[in-house]
Amino acid sequence: MKLVRISTVEGRIAYGIPRPDGTAIICTGDFESGFQPSSKAMPIATCLPPLSPPNIIGIGLNYRQHARETKATIPDKPVVFAKLTTSVTGHNHPIILPMVTDPDGEVDYECELAVIIGKTAHNTPASTALDHVFGYTCANDVSARQWQKFGGNGQWVRGKSFDTFCPLGPWIVTADEIPDPQALPIRTRLNGMVMQEHTTADMIFTVAQLIHFLSQDTTLLPGTIILTGTPQGVGFVRHPPVWLKAGDSVSVEIDGIGTLTNPVVKSS
Amino acid sequence: MKLVRISTVEGRIAYGIPRPDGTAIICTGDFESGFQPSSKAMPIATCLPPLSPPNIIGIGLNYRQHARETKATIPDKPVVFAKLTTSVTGHNHPIILPMVTDPDGEVDYECELAVIIGKTAHNTPASTALDHVFGYTCANDVSARQWQKFGGNGQWVRGKSFDTFCPLGPWIVTADEIPDPQALPIRTRLNGMVMQEHTTADMIFTVAQLIHFLSQDTTLLPGTIILTGTPQGVGFVRHPPVWLKAGDSVSVEIDGIGTLTNPVVKSS
Repeated sequence: MKLVRISTVEGRIAYGIPRPDGTAIICTGDFESGFQPSSKAMPIATCLPPLSPPNIIGIGLNYRQHARETKATIPDKPVVFAKLTTSVTGHNHPIILPMVTDPDGEVDYECELAVIIGKTAHNTPASTALDHVFGYTCANDVSARQWQKFGGNGQWVRGKSFDTFCPLGPWIVTADEIPDPQALPIRTRLNGMVMQEHTTADMIFTVAQLIHFLSQDTTLLPGTIILTGTPQGVGFVRHPPVWLKAGDSVSVEIDGIGTLTNPVVKSS
Repeated sequence: MKLVRISTVEGRIAYGIPRPDGTAIICTGDFESGFQPSSKAMPIATCLPPLSPPNIIGIGLNYRQHARETKATIPDKPVVFAKLTTSVTGHNHPIILPMVTDPDGEVDYECELAVIIGKTAHNTPASTALDHVFGYTCANDVSARQWQKFGGNGQWVRGKSFDTFCPLGPWIVTADEIPDPQALPIRTRLNGMVMQEHTTADMIFTVAQLIHFLSQDTTLLPGTIILTGTPQGVGFVRHPPVWLKAGDSVSVEIDGIGTLTNPVVKSS
């Protein structure tokens, strides 16, 4: 099932199954118990970010070829950071280049598979971890590289948490439609050109292993997002480097999930 | 005004002004517009953590003497990390030693002044930043030192975000009662013994400067918590090091705010 989060023309926020005619079948439920379609369809006024998570946990350097391109050693434990929940934005909403970032460019794209927790995970073994996944969506782990390195004195959260730095969408695909999250082709297109293209099979720590690792003595509530890392091809390792600039359009595509597209704009 | 977050005997969650007889005057309102006392008083069944924040932003090495004791250079920009929102716990609730931490000890205390944002801050200059503070509470930025260093490959969030690693409380003191947040004596007592004792005057970046820095191109929503760093005297730099162990009682005291006490227990 594909679930969009919408604002209806009456201003209500609801989840729905999108239909080609621009309406959605309204669903009731939640991430823990699941969603059921109702008999009601409603016109979609606006597509919202697919959820408002209690936490966003990011994993760095989780693709072998990306770890290599950054000259990092293959990590023996997940590299765990957080993005502030205020960084979330939705499909077709702009990525805003922060005023405080380098005007010559430093803002980079990272296509990522986003996992959305359904049933609360806590000390969950890897063998049953996927039972705790509600679904998946596309994410762009937008990162200001100078701020990532220096803006938090080596801690990444500041440079990865500017407003609009976590596009998610366009919708959630429920876990039953993704039998193997480690077999998904994933790519980034910048103004139509493929910049990253790989498969989630290259992840160092699988989705199940990440849920196990992160849930040790730690509660992953329904709606928690895990960003599972990005494959090779990011902008900052290119010669010359490629930075997002106003007027760009950047898309994250995951086969079987969808395409998340965001225009890039200057801060006004 | 002192505000406690309570569960009433009827099971309602409410904010109230505590009274010596064990009841609270119920208040209505929110962090953005403020709280007003009603004419109703209710018995307090349980004291809850004083809020459920949308984000917890931590600042590392923000006291000069603490930076010195850890042999770190005085940072020229705030060291910014995040704690997952699920780490919050309240006054008198236990700090649970994680099963995955070193059984010989690695869990440390850090007394901190916690700032609670009231009116949304976004590109807020330091000169008006304190107008965006709703109030203050005591925090213990509990940290598993091995996990802080190695559990996230250098990123701190994993080792600082185990469940119960962010005690807050016992109540919120509204900003009007704290004319100068840079003049507060702050200390940690471990089983009654003073382990940290200093003043918020030693902060490298003041509360106002932190709000300015963190709100650059970034929205600090009402209820956002900023943990402003800890003074010297933490357990891991002592000879021999001092670790929290089951049976301990640890208190964070800030003069003019209150005393936050938590027993330490093993994971069961």
